[in-house]
Amino acid sequence: MSEFGFGVDIGGTTIKLGLFGVEGVLLDKWEIPTRKDDGGKYILEDIAKEIEAKLVEKNVPKYNCAGVGMGVPGPIKEDGTVLKCVNLGWGIFNVADELSKMISMPVKVGNDANMAALGESWQGGGKGYQNQVMVTLGTGVGGGIILDGKMISGVNGAAGEIGHIKINQEEQDTCGCGKCGCLEQYASATGIVKEAKKALNNTDKPSKLREVSYISAKEIFDAAKTGDELANELVEKLGENLGLALAHISCVVDPEVYVIGGGVSKAGDILIQVVQKHYKKNAFHASRDVKFALATLGNDAGIWGGAKLIFGK
Amino acid sequence: MSEFGFGVDIGGTTIKLGLFGVEGVLLDKWEIPTRKDDGGKYILEDIAKEIEAKLVEKNVPKYNCAGVGMGVPGPIKEDGTVLKCVNLGWGIFNVADELSKMISMPVKVGNDANMAALGESWQGGGKGYQNQVMVTLGTGVGGGIILDGKMISGVNGAAGEIGHIKINQEEQDTCGCGKCGCLEQYASATGIVKEAKKALNNTDKPSKLREVSYISAKEIFDAAKTGDELANELVEKLGENLGLALAHISCVVDPEVYVIGGGVSKAGDILIQVVQKHYKKNAFHASRDVKFALATLGNDAGIWGGAKLIFGK
Repeated sequence: MSEFGFGVDIGGTTIKLGLFGVEGVLLDKWEIPTRKDDGGKYILEDIAKEIEAKLVEKNVPKYNCAGVGMGVPGPIKEDGTVLKCVNLGWGIFNVADELSKMISMPVKVGNDANMAALGESWQGGGKGYQNQVMVTLGTGVGGGIILDGKMISGVNGAAGEIGHIKINQEEQDTCGCGKCGCLEQYASATGIVKEAKKALNNTDKPSKLREVSYISAKEIFDAAKTGDELANELVEKLGENLGLALAHISCVVDPEVYVIGGGVSKAGDILIQVVQKHYKKNAFHASRDVKFALATLGNDAGIWGGAKLIFGK
Repeated sequence: MSEFGFGVDIGGTTIKLGLFGVEGVLLDKWEIPTRKDDGGKYILEDIAKEIEAKLVEKNVPKYNCAGVGMGVPGPIKEDGTVLKCVNLGWGIFNVADELSKMISMPVKVGNDANMAALGESWQGGGKGYQNQVMVTLGTGVGGGIILDGKMISGVNGAAGEIGHIKINQEEQDTCGCGKCGCLEQYASATGIVKEAKKALNNTDKPSKLREVSYISAKEIFDAAKTGDELANELVEKLGENLGLALAHISCVVDPEVYVIGGGVSKAGDILIQVVQKHYKKNAFHASRDVKFALATLGNDAGIWGGAKLIFGK
């Protein structure tokens, strides 16, 4: 059995890479920018160069390396075929085969949110649970469904695309996916800010947020923690939307724990509490006492998940 | 390996029983009334008597019988513990252990909707698909989630409780589960009729349904097929609600096929078409081309599923 493996997480701005030991140790991690020029054709080349260089630097022979596990921001089939990654400019092709040819090592590919879920369930907030749903509140809203310890990918690679559960029938604004009223439009970092701006424009209510020049999810939660009424309304509404969507999910897979990660989850307990409150209101009685936990691996969850994917069980 | 096994489906009114051959043949089936007196304490006794009598009648020795697979109308844990069956008057106890002691044979128990799903996936409308969601539109709305050929039961036995996905935030009427706005309130046989009565009371629109003394889902679909405007609006609304809920489910498990069963599904193609139309509007793009099929085993799906549960893979 190989001692080493790489985890790679391709984002719209940066690519994160990590060298791992099979027993679950992160030996080295680094980042490179995501070159999206020319339909993203340099992305895999850049990754291949980084990996070859790291193997030389660390003096790791390829036969002692399990390969590369990689997360990409879009739906992926089990064979490694990506079905369009609008954020990267990619069309439809087999990412796993392509990179594998370049580096002459095995490559496995999954959806980035699924990879983060796998990482968190291996060594993070979900460690020890066999049935869990990871919710990633970042630029978008992603999810990863783990049942009996195994990641569910879905027939079209779209299992866990929980950001596109439609929770508002009245919404007129369009989501990145083309539909209107998706969870992602309200519970992503960008969605939260957009809702805040709407609320600030639509009322005269005093709020600390009016004095902030650049509003992010952090400012909203910080203001809410100090008792700001408008900020608290926004947090409540976020909890309502997210709690409702998670209640839907429990009616389908009935997990043991929801692990909440992504940049927005840095808000901590205030987020967990408001989501849990609204979850309980909307959940089927048998699933009402599901656990909620915060993700612990932060931005590294994706590379941990990649490593777990290539190491296997 | 045993040649024979029993499938049992406990309903609120009748208990269906079937004797099966392991290769997937229904050898005999019959029904008895469900005695709900005294907290449903006679139900398992009645089933035990029926099974013992059938073994004698058919001259099947117990060593040649795999046992009994049984569906009950409520959430069930994997170990066979039922978490209240309001329809039967049952509290919390281990149904599998109890019946097994009475008949000295192995007993496995699952949720009735899950059993119907297992039956349909074994020998019915879902035959040949490894990833499917069975939707049962009967007195209530149940579901069964089969991933990689295996039934998902959930940590609290509530996986596939899709009738309790909340699809209407404005609803004031309470669902049997205690929440308001559950899918079951609109898409069950009783829910459809309730919505029809509301519509007939709230408008003066002419409709054939006004001449029907006892409205059931069948009359509504029959009227819709002949072009009745009000009936068509009702069918459209049903499609909207069901299509939306199934789109939610695809964002979680992304199945290959939805198999629609239960009494309401006798409406046939008109139901599939309207559900599919609204599903496509609400589904995430990668999952938009999921297949829809009608269940084929009718009221026997539950006993087929019970048999499959006890025979195993």
